[in-house]
Amino acid sequence: MNKNSSNVMALAPNTPNKRETVCIFGTGDFGRALGNKMIQSGYPVVYGSRSTQISNLIPKDAEVLGHAEAAQKAAIIIIAIQRQHYNFLTPLAEVLHGKVLVDISNNLKLNQYPESNAEYLAQLLPGSKVVKAFNTVSAWALQSGTLDASRQVFVCGDDVEAKQMVMDIVRAVGLTPLDKGSLLAAQEIENYPLQLFPMWKFPFFLSFGLTAFFFFYCLVLDVIYTYIYENNNFSFFIAITIPNRVFPVMALILLALVYLPGIFAAIIQLYRGTKYRRFPDWLDKWMLCRKQLGLIALAFASLHVVFTLVTPMRAFVSWRTSKGIISQALNNKTEPLNHTTAWISDSYLALGILGYFLFVLLGITSLPSVSNNVNWREFRFVQSKLGYLSLILCTAHTLVYGGKWFLSPSAYKWYLPNIYMLSLVVPCAVLVVKFVLIFPCVDRPLTQIRQGWERNPKYSQ
Amino acid sequence: MNKNSSNVMALAPNTPNKRETVCIFGTGDFGRALGNKMIQSGYPVVYGSRSTQISNLIPKDAEVLGHAEAAQKAAIIIIAIQRQHYNFLTPLAEVLHGKVLVDISNNLKLNQYPESNAEYLAQLLPGSKVVKAFNTVSAWALQSGTLDASRQVFVCGDDVEAKQMVMDIVRAVGLTPLDKGSLLAAQEIENYPLQLFPMWKFPFFLSFGLTAFFFFYCLVLDVIYTYIYENNNFSFFIAITIPNRVFPVMALILLALVYLPGIFAAIIQLYRGTKYRRFPDWLDKWMLCRKQLGLIALAFASLHVVFTLVTPMRAFVSWRTSKGIISQALNNKTEPLNHTTAWISDSYLALGILGYFLFVLLGITSLPSVSNNVNWREFRFVQSKLGYLSLILCTAHTLVYGGKWFLSPSAYKWYLPNIYMLSLVVPCAVLVVKFVLIFPCVDRPLTQIRQGWERNPKYSQ
Amino acid sequence: MNKNSSNVMALAPNTPNKRETVCIFGTGDFGRALGNKMIQSGYPVVYGSRSTQISNLIPKDAEVLGHAEAAQKAAIIIIAIQRQHYNFLTPLAEVLHGKVLVDISNNLKLNQYPESNAEYLAQLLPGSKVVKAFNTVSAWALQSGTLDASRQVFVCGDDVEAKQMVMDIVRAVGLTPLDKGSLLAAQEIENYPLQLFPMWKFPFFLSFGLTAFFFFYCLVLDVIYTYIYENNNFSFFIAITIPNRVFPVMALILLALVYLPGIFAAIIQLYRGTKYRRFPDWLDKWMLCRKQLGLIALAFASLHVVFTLVTPMRAFVSWRTSKGIISQALNNKTEPLNHTTAWISDSYLALGILGYFLFVLLGITSLPSVSNNVNWREFRFVQSKLGYLSLILCTAHTLVYGGKWFLSPSAYKWYLPNIYMLSLVVPCAVLVVKFVLIFPCVDRPLTQIRQGWERNPKYSQ
Repeated sequence: MNKNSSNVMALAPNTPNKRETVCIFGTGDFGRALGNKMIQSGYPVVYGSRSTQISNLIPKDAEVLGHAEAAQKAAIIIIAIQRQHYNFLTPLAEVLHGKVLVDISNNLKLNQYPESNAEYLAQLLPGSKVVKAFNTVSAWALQSGTLDASRQVFVCGDDVEAKQMVMDIVRAVGLTPLDKGSLLAAQEIENYPLQLFPMWKFPFFLSFGLTAFFFFYCLVLDVIYTYIYENNNFSFFIAITIPNRVFPVMALILLALVYLPGIFAAIIQLYRGTKYRRFPDWLDKWMLCRKQLGLIALAFASLHVVFTLVTPMRAFVSWRTSKGIISQALNNKTEPLNHTTAWISDSYLALGILGYFLFVLLGITSLPSVSNNVNWREFRFVQSKLGYLSLILCTAHTLVYGGKWFLSPSAYKWYLPNIYMLSLVVPCAVLVVKFVLIFPCVDRPLTQIRQGWERNPKYSQ
Repeated sequence: MNKNSSNVMALAPNTPNKRETVCIFGTGDFGRALGNKMIQSGYPVVYGSRSTQISNLIPKDAEVLGHAEAAQKAAIIIIAIQRQHYNFLTPLAEVLHGKVLVDISNNLKLNQYPESNAEYLAQLLPGSKVVKAFNTVSAWALQSGTLDASRQVFVCGDDVEAKQMVMDIVRAVGLTPLDKGSLLAAQEIENYPLQLFPMWKFPFFLSFGLTAFFFFYCLVLDVIYTYIYENNNFSFFIAITIPNRVFPVMALILLALVYLPGIFAAIIQLYRGTKYRRFPDWLDKWMLCRKQLGLIALAFASLHVVFTLVTPMRAFVSWRTSKGIISQALNNKTEPLNHTTAWISDSYLALGILGYFLFVLLGITSLPSVSNNVNWREFRFVQSKLGYLSLILCTAHTLVYGGKWFLSPSAYKWYLPNIYMLSLVVPCAVLVVKFVLIFPCVDRPLTQIRQGWERNPKYSQ
Repeated sequence: MNKNSSNVMALAPNTPNKRETVCIFGTGDFGRALGNKMIQSGYPVVYGSRSTQISNLIPKDAEVLGHAEAAQKAAIIIIAIQRQHYNFLTPLAEVLHGKVLVDISNNLKLNQYPESNAEYLAQLLPGSKVVKAFNTVSAWALQSGTLDASRQVFVCGDDVEAKQMVMDIVRAVGLTPLDKGSLLAAQEIENYPLQLFPMWKFPFFLSFGLTAFFFFYCLVLDVIYTYIYENNNFSFFIAITIPNRVFPVMALILLALVYLPGIFAAIIQLYRGTKYRRFPDWLDKWMLCRKQLGLIALAFASLHVVFTLVTPMRAFVSWRTSKGIISQALNNKTEPLNHTTAWISDSYLALGILGYFLFVLLGITSLPSVSNNVNWREFRFVQSKLGYLSLILCTAHTLVYGGKWFLSPSAYKWYLPNIYMLSLVVPCAVLVVKFVLIFPCVDRPLTQIRQGWERNPKYSQ
């Protein structure tokens, strides 16, 4: 919360000025922003520049020299120029020998070059110690001081001492260094800032497509059908009634899709009799985005909960309620309590609440800081045991609520089944197969396979 | 969220092959899984094995040699064999001299041996540098690549450089190393994966027992009593009415139990006049699981909130409401607004919401990533000041809601008090004693004692 | 969650006793607490003390000697005395030469001295290696073992090896060391435990003041006006009705205030034609507390949601509902469904739910552990795109709900506008200006300026 305080600190003028000089090659936007920030943190900064004409954009307290003179003044040189111009550094190899070069460059797209910029720099200047750092921070953020997103700066390099020196600078400007190991990690670090939720893309488009489909399905059955055959205009169902029919369906299907790949994996392993052959690619990818599927399912479930809770506040619902009461009053009679209805209504509410409660627990344990404090045994207990319990409760909730529709012919408008029925296909299939898989006669060989046993082991000489 | 990306990265084929050879002793499941993962990350892997017959389970790109030859090829040897067989390594002491040995073993139960496996290995081979690592990751997770739980790998060892080398491997296979210090930490690291929520056991069983008790208490008073004396079958109360009577009671009692040990500690310290004597064991244990008690209380409170909010959707409630309205309509009269009822109803709702709101705030600050960003002064402010405020509001909520029952004789079915009254005993006691403790005449000596003052100091020569 | 386990571990007696001796100067409260904890973790502890008379408060297993003798026995000396008495150490300079001195002192107020205590110590004893550590932990917490708040211990120092030795001790007593770099960080570390939510002060007082103002505004219009002119006593509105009118207004205004400084910044940059001049101070400060403003807005929005959801449970509301139904029944007529009302009611509910949903998403991504797993591009996408979408939805929710009041004269009691209208001023202004700013003819120069372009660049020689 008050992380920003360190930033405020760094701006305070009482930092004594005993830092070592840092050289920055390149007077572009990022070079200037970083130089400014380092001067504020007490570092003497010298710029290495080709041009003798000095822009007033360069921080006032910084010196500007030619590349060679500037490099001689410092042990650390920050290379704030683009990869295409790296080769101009080769003539400077002698001056840069033994110095720490900090590669801060980024690419325009993922894996743009065969090797990372930092490794390329290290190849060009084998006598220098190259450290990758700072590429995940934007100049604009450094400039404006509003570092409210991640303060982590990934640092990697082959020389431990050089890395330490760079990490000290990172800390001094108010950021948090994170050691990512040797320079081989540079490719990953350079790709990192270019990503936009890569693991979320498939789950997002899948759920978007399914939501659109179910929305139009409901629109046809609940609004258009009613308008044509019953001449009732229920177009306002678009706002709450239909979303609240689509959201729980999506939540249930996506939750089942979280557990379906595990079922497939078990069947494949049982069939092959070994765990040492790779799964098909689609299954691998599916297993890697289960967490994202689960979180989107949780989002839909949460929307369903709130949309349901506002029901009594809807003008349509209170109109329908008063109509019912008034007609009873005018007929001078009071209907007795129907115990079956009371049981059904209370059961599906209770089942839904408990299922949602476990679902939220699952969501909380998937927060990075919580899952880091939980060991594998505990994580598997929560995600597998509690996850299946949540799936069972949510499926039961839907069954108890929508069960009556299965037999009623009015549920099959235009011979199309109600979406409650569609929503139950995947979860019921998952639960039935899982139920089969936990029988000892199936579970025992599966456990053995997962512990490394093979049905048809082959030995070679 | 997109942590998995690093995993996807590691699988990419463009990692250059300049890593140093790693040797793995043992061709068991974990040895194979780890070898596979390391080969994928660009490490040449050589297995040390007793048998010349080589299983095809061993990764294709790996070499398999005798133990001594394999060990000579690498600076790092991963010991993927069980502790019982460690003594076969003693003849190899000369070959292993100066090498980094990575102990990845786990035990079957907590504190199985007097010393940790890693320390035992270090004793057997005093010339080698033993590092403990990788024991918290499962072979299955490495194999399937679905590392969605904690990616943290605890690393400890007495040699800093050896530890660095192992941490680089950990990072290369897509995991996050966490330095736990010297080899003395190995025991703790070996116990870690065997735990299943050790701090949660007592709070869980306590709340389970209390919930069961209150559930049957309510069942007897609300369903069985009504059935016997009033011949009404309210069995459907089991689904919502009774849980929603038990949950708030549990939440309030558990919240009070979070603050009760602090009260006891203060009384004991005041009585003894010193803070330098240990508390009784039961109090120590109780104090250590306050966070867990609080989180379970929050879970009950959340369930109470949702169970309450669905009230208007229950068939029983809407039947009761219409019955009331119809009887008024048939009697041709409208009851005027009872201002007292309006005040009471609005007050307990508002008190409950505000109390729950503060309770949720407490829960959020107990998330590891939030509490790590809060200093002790802030943490104590939130947990103590806001916590007590939440307890006061929740107790007031219950008092305003349940107050009317205290005097009504109908509340004492079978001479048993309503559970509202039972639920108020502990919180009221805590609040009254706390109120006494903040009086200056009591607070001043307590503060002095906590700052190290003693009533009867004893000096020895 | 089960972080405490390590603490329990540390208390276990099976830790072998091979740690190196640690010396503690000073037998005050913190020195004793730390000594106790270190003895429990297997460290031999020797106290350096001026007095030969030894209090029985000193742990039994610890030795107590004169300062010089004690210092000679250990490589690490923990200085548990106050800064004012540091100068008594200068005569010991020779004994302390080359030793690691751990400064654990705290000050009474922020920036109390020109240099930090640790730097002062390093100046007094230039031959020793000074490390700052342990000052963020309280003696009371160490003593009672209830380390349920942050276990992080900030460590800084100029000597890497000395820092490593101290970090090993930190880990051994069950805490988590966090390297903060060189000794220059000591000032920040010493200020850290003195802070009490510094970034929250302004947002808190702003929202407190605004809430009070709107509360009295509503009190006057809804309770006092009604009492005077309509002779109705609606004093119970204080509990729910008025808060639920103030909370959404506060949430909307504060959410708009999160985005207003960004608008100001853009206008200032467009006007100046450069990003290289600092913003006015008030704008800088405002931008730094946007996250806090947003979280307080989320708190108000959450309270609004729960206060709204309990509406059907209020005695006043059910009385009003039955009155309406009974009067219809007595008049023997049923009002038909008003489609416009149904549309409006469903729309503002749906808009509000979706806006709140996005708002909660924003809140979750601002959790430290989540925002650390998100890169800048993703963070900006969520905070800017989703944030504005949430603001649009919430403003639309208020417009649809409160729109009817704009034209009705009854909304202007005592010529004062309803607070719905007041609440819409800031968000509408923000949205309109933002809408202008995303026009290409305005957006293009702004983007250029933010990439470092200047309208009137000045070059000096």
